Amino acid sequence: MDTMGRHVIAELWECDIDKLNNMDYIERVFVNAALEAGAEVREVAFHKFAPQGVSGVVIISESHLTIHSFPEHGYASIDVYTCGDRIDPNVAADYIAHSLESKKSEVVELPRGMGEITLKPRQENVYSK
Amino acid sequence: MDTMGRHVIAELWECDIDKLNNMDYIERVFVNAALEAGAEVREVAFHKFAPQGVSGVVIISESHLTIHSFPEHGYASIDVYTCGDRIDPNVAADYIAHSLESKKSEVVELPRGMGEITLKPRQENVYSK
Repeated sequence: MDTMGRHVIAELWECDIDKLNNMDYIERVFVNAALEAGAEVREVAFHKFAPQGVSGVVIISESHLTIHSFPEHGYASIDVYTCGDRIDPNVAADYIAHSLESKKSEVVELPRGMGEITLKPRQENVYSK
Repeated sequence: MDTMGRHVIAELWECDIDKLNNMDYIERVFVNAALEAGAEVREVAFHKFAPQGVSGVVIISESHLTIHSFPEHGYASIDVYTCGDRIDPNVAADYIAHSLESKKSEVVELPRGMGEITLKPRQENVYSK
């Protein structure tokens, strides 16, 4: 298998607070996001924190999707990493952002397994002054 | 909990090939790396691929550690993401690089949960022309 991969990092703000705290919902969203992108799900592990927040991962044949949610800040920290060029990680990242009803986000993409790591902003950085 | 986090991305090359293909070893290394950094382990999920390669994650209270190994290329793709400022993700990343006997690496760090995503190279980029 080639080492080439694409790693999308999405900072999702102003999400739906109840959804950010609903582990079952997030787990379903993440599995569906992986399938939507055409990935093959291998392992699923999620954890609910007290008093709030969810962390979780879906390991796919093509790498992984992770989330850490901070309901008290309306924030979710998302990674979608896919190896190879068959799958577009942005399909899964978009599905997740939509499902969490994020109204403000920053999304960047990094190449993996190809030597130098560079940052490619995917959209206008809404946080720039 | 504050959204502030540090995300270390490590591209490890020229690793020990047998270790890259040994799921039990990698799982132990990852749990120990998390503990070494002072993190609290919450979930552990690893997967062995045929004919080779290991993917896995350790979810910690402070976010996650992931690996995707490509023994045929001597390459391991590592993420260590820690929320808050109590834990240094580089401690875990260094522990992993050492345990996999990587002889060439590129390591960068990204801020998470703080707005703009920027890249901070941690060490000289050995892949630069």
